[in-house]
Amino acid sequence: MSKLKNDTLIRALKREPTPYTPVWIMRQAGRYLPEYNQTRARAGSFLALCKNPDFATEVTLQPLARFALDAAIVFSDILTIPDAMGLGLYFSEGEGPQFERPLRDEWEIRNLFVPDPGEHLRYVLDAVAQIRRALANEVPLIGFSGSPFTLACYMVEGGASADFRMTKSMLYNRPQVLHHILDINTRAVTAYLNAQIEAGAQAVMLFDTWGGVLSGTAYREFSLPYLQRIVAGLKREHGGEAVPNIVFTKGGGQWLEDIAAIGCDAVGLDWNTDIGEARRRIGNRVALQGNLDPAVLFSSPEIIKRQTHQVLAAFGHGNGHVFNLGHGVSQFTSPENVAALVNAVHELSPHYH
Amino acid sequence: MSKLKNDTLIRALKREPTPYTPVWIMRQAGRYLPEYNQTRARAGSFLALCKNPDFATEVTLQPLARFALDAAIVFSDILTIPDAMGLGLYFSEGEGPQFERPLRDEWEIRNLFVPDPGEHLRYVLDAVAQIRRALANEVPLIGFSGSPFTLACYMVEGGASADFRMTKSMLYNRPQVLHHILDINTRAVTAYLNAQIEAGAQAVMLFDTWGGVLSGTAYREFSLPYLQRIVAGLKREHGGEAVPNIVFTKGGGQWLEDIAAIGCDAVGLDWNTDIGEARRRIGNRVALQGNLDPAVLFSSPEIIKRQTHQVLAAFGHGNGHVFNLGHGVSQFTSPENVAALVNAVHELSPHYH
Repeated sequence: MSKLKNDTLIRALKREPTPYTPVWIMRQAGRYLPEYNQTRARAGSFLALCKNPDFATEVTLQPLARFALDAAIVFSDILTIPDAMGLGLYFSEGEGPQFERPLRDEWEIRNLFVPDPGEHLRYVLDAVAQIRRALANEVPLIGFSGSPFTLACYMVEGGASADFRMTKSMLYNRPQVLHHILDINTRAVTAYLNAQIEAGAQAVMLFDTWGGVLSGTAYREFSLPYLQRIVAGLKREHGGEAVPNIVFTKGGGQWLEDIAAIGCDAVGLDWNTDIGEARRRIGNRVALQGNLDPAVLFSSPEIIKRQTHQVLAAFGHGNGHVFNLGHGVSQFTSPENVAALVNAVHELSPHYH
Repeated sequence: MSKLKNDTLIRALKREPTPYTPVWIMRQAGRYLPEYNQTRARAGSFLALCKNPDFATEVTLQPLARFALDAAIVFSDILTIPDAMGLGLYFSEGEGPQFERPLRDEWEIRNLFVPDPGEHLRYVLDAVAQIRRALANEVPLIGFSGSPFTLACYMVEGGASADFRMTKSMLYNRPQVLHHILDINTRAVTAYLNAQIEAGAQAVMLFDTWGGVLSGTAYREFSLPYLQRIVAGLKREHGGEAVPNIVFTKGGGQWLEDIAAIGCDAVGLDWNTDIGEARRRIGNRVALQGNLDPAVLFSSPEIIKRQTHQVLAAFGHGNGHVFNLGHGVSQFTSPENVAALVNAVHELSPHYH
């Protein structure tokens, strides 16, 4: 494999010098892009997009054709693993992801198995390989997965939830049953991310979307140790190149020290957290990714530039910052405003390097 | 007025010695109680309950008849003020609160007025007075309001929101327009809480339910200064008795130092925050209220007792703790488990005093 032409993301994740702050955007291939909606219409559904490597490659590349992004992220879903376990992932309009067969009985939980990525998640690995070829080493490709706890929430609830009543009932009443699910998920995520790395992913990210609904004590028992096990089990290089990892717990701003201590390369920050304070707390150990409020993209290029500058200035001078939003880009965002963000990062950040 | 028989709540909010940790529960009069559902059926709707002082008194007292709670809280809604402003509060099944006439145009915003509590919110003041009489000084009565920013969210969105797109668009695009709404709301909330105090409320609480959706910078501009203005404008005593106040920003665990600095008597904590850490951070300045995960009440009396003990032990020995959940009690909670919680606090907490 030849060298990456733009390796700013990889270098920033390793806290090495870069001439500017690299930027990518969570959900950068998504419904705010008309061309994405066209491809999705051709594919028939979100899941059909994910499961067809040609379509997945096409939409992964769409934002890169528009914006000077410093990374691609494989187009997929955080819930591919439970789908591969047979739970039957589906999406109904306006409802978010759901499972046809959520975990309702303990015998179902005892029968859970670790899917073989090469078999049950082949379509993701094929997409990773195909996207890598299409990227032609212009920018790195990020692979990802949901965290064990986040997967468990969806597996137990059967979908998103306001209060995670079933998951938390299990957590407090039958903690060993939840730990069993989390153990299976941990082995599955580790194998899956390593398979993505072998297929060509040059960095990987763990999305702990729901860890922030826990108390600190419960987070340290039911989410964090499993993130730590995954990080410990991840390949750290492939083909002679370092493969850094990013751990993101939405709502985890109070636990940054704990997250930074699990051995990950970078910590993702939601927009509630001040990135300057986060740097003072953990910036000597990990890189930081984030963290503009996605709602800033509902404003104007001028305001976006000013708010982007605030985040850059809050991080301050030096290495180890990957610019991103604090959460996925909204479907109601205008692509022009995303361009304004990417351009602002590239225009303003060299001052800090 | 004669003396309170049980003044543990008031004393704890003032960080004075108490023989045990007082406990009350957010939304303690609510759908988890069969007798509440019966009264609500008789009243016809949630709003009819709120607006009729007889019904409001009846449901306010219901949890006190069942549990040895150390406070009552007036049965009302956090959105009475925008309703009094003419926005037309209503509730549709499963949807949460909504407004018939949300703020869509700037002329509507310019025409906003500060409602006179004695006129437009008479029903709340009548309920407060009637509940005080019915309580016969057994336990104190807490009054409350939504925070200016939280009210503004509902007023602009027209209801709850996943992303607060309209409010945040205004915040970033037209900050002065949002500041105008917040100024009106601040004056309205201050007058309303002071009227509740004059009608007999013996403590007051500000619910900043949505402050936690902001970035720290935005929180310090659009929520916190208005909370501070209200606290500065609140009556601190009535009838020769101190009237302490509590400020609760859900999701505000990263900003506790800022909240404690606005001059409030107590800070409410959601369940994400470790109450022991919170005490180390701000416990020398304010009392702390909270913060058991409401989902613990989906477990068993034995587990509830153990988890309650964890919160008491995390706060530790000494004064200034009011036990509560970290959020309102769920409608799916069994009353027996609420009894287990209240009894556990009373049984276990004397050790810490």
